[in-house]
Amino acid sequence: MRVLGIDPGLTRCGFGVIDSTTTGKAALVAVGVLRSDPTAAIEQRLLDIDTAISQLFVDYAPDSIAVERVFAQANVRTVMGTAQVSGLALVNASRRGLPVRSYTPSEVKAAITGSGRADKAQVGTMVTKILGLPEMPKPADAADALAIAICHLWRGAAQDRLAAAVAAARR
Amino acid sequence: MRVLGIDPGLTRCGFGVIDSTTTGKAALVAVGVLRSDPTAAIEQRLLDIDTAISQLFVDYAPDSIAVERVFAQANVRTVMGTAQVSGLALVNASRRGLPVRSYTPSEVKAAITGSGRADKAQVGTMVTKILGLPEMPKPADAADALAIAICHLWRGAAQDRLAAAVAAARR
Repeated sequence: MRVLGIDPGLTRCGFGVIDSTTTGKAALVAVGVLRSDPTAAIEQRLLDIDTAISQLFVDYAPDSIAVERVFAQANVRTVMGTAQVSGLALVNASRRGLPVRSYTPSEVKAAITGSGRADKAQVGTMVTKILGLPEMPKPADAADALAIAICHLWRGAAQDRLAAAVAAARR
Repeated sequence: MRVLGIDPGLTRCGFGVIDSTTTGKAALVAVGVLRSDPTAAIEQRLLDIDTAISQLFVDYAPDSIAVERVFAQANVRTVMGTAQVSGLALVNASRRGLPVRSYTPSEVKAAITGSGRADKAQVGTMVTKILGLPEMPKPADAADALAIAICHLWRGAAQDRLAAAVAAARR
């Protein structure tokens, strides 16, 4: 299974693509950051990010999408842009009929590090270790997107097994 | 000039289409509400609203778009959906190369009623009067969308005249 993880943002939107391997591990396919020009009009910035997200689906043909869930933060202006970009990611997945899930930041941290309160460095370190990378992906938004994808691969697989077990028990 | 006004929302997204007439008045073309199923998954709801917004551009071929600007409100869950739908409206306009502007609720109220603190009933009454309608458009989201379109027609026209005057003075 190939998972596309997205850490939504208007100025920097992190993305990470991973494959589940036959040995149950996760392998890096691609990682990076989509950017929009902070001096451009908001509608142009959103369109640029939307076009770039759409291209990710073409380039990597993911089977499943995971998006970080947006919460209200101190900076209202930032959270609006983040919410709008997360909406674009969800619509892009839905338009292609692909399954998509959202995870809170603490769900992602807990899945990757064992603690929902882990800091960014700890998440980055674990992502690097899990994927067997020579160094930590940068910037942090890119590493976060990989963490979201790994979280989805692990939790999604566990949820699928659980659903299968429940279905089997009912037969 | 034909203006499409959008009052973004996930459960109810108001839209209003008006034409500026040769006598400087505004005439109603269409008004209504786009809805998504509150029990559906968020990605399906956003896709449904996106598809419906896209169809508005096809059906009414607006020259210009006005969207109500989203602010943080008490209900974080609601504001996220509203921000996401406003993003979809902005991308739909931008994708078609159409000019789009956002106005705050108080800007719209001030343009329509003379007071930025007017209540919904007052805005609805003025919209009904300005467009010469037999009765107030319902629900409130539909009337609000018309108010946004009227605000844009008046303010946009004034801004265009101002820009033209400035350009003429520089010649």
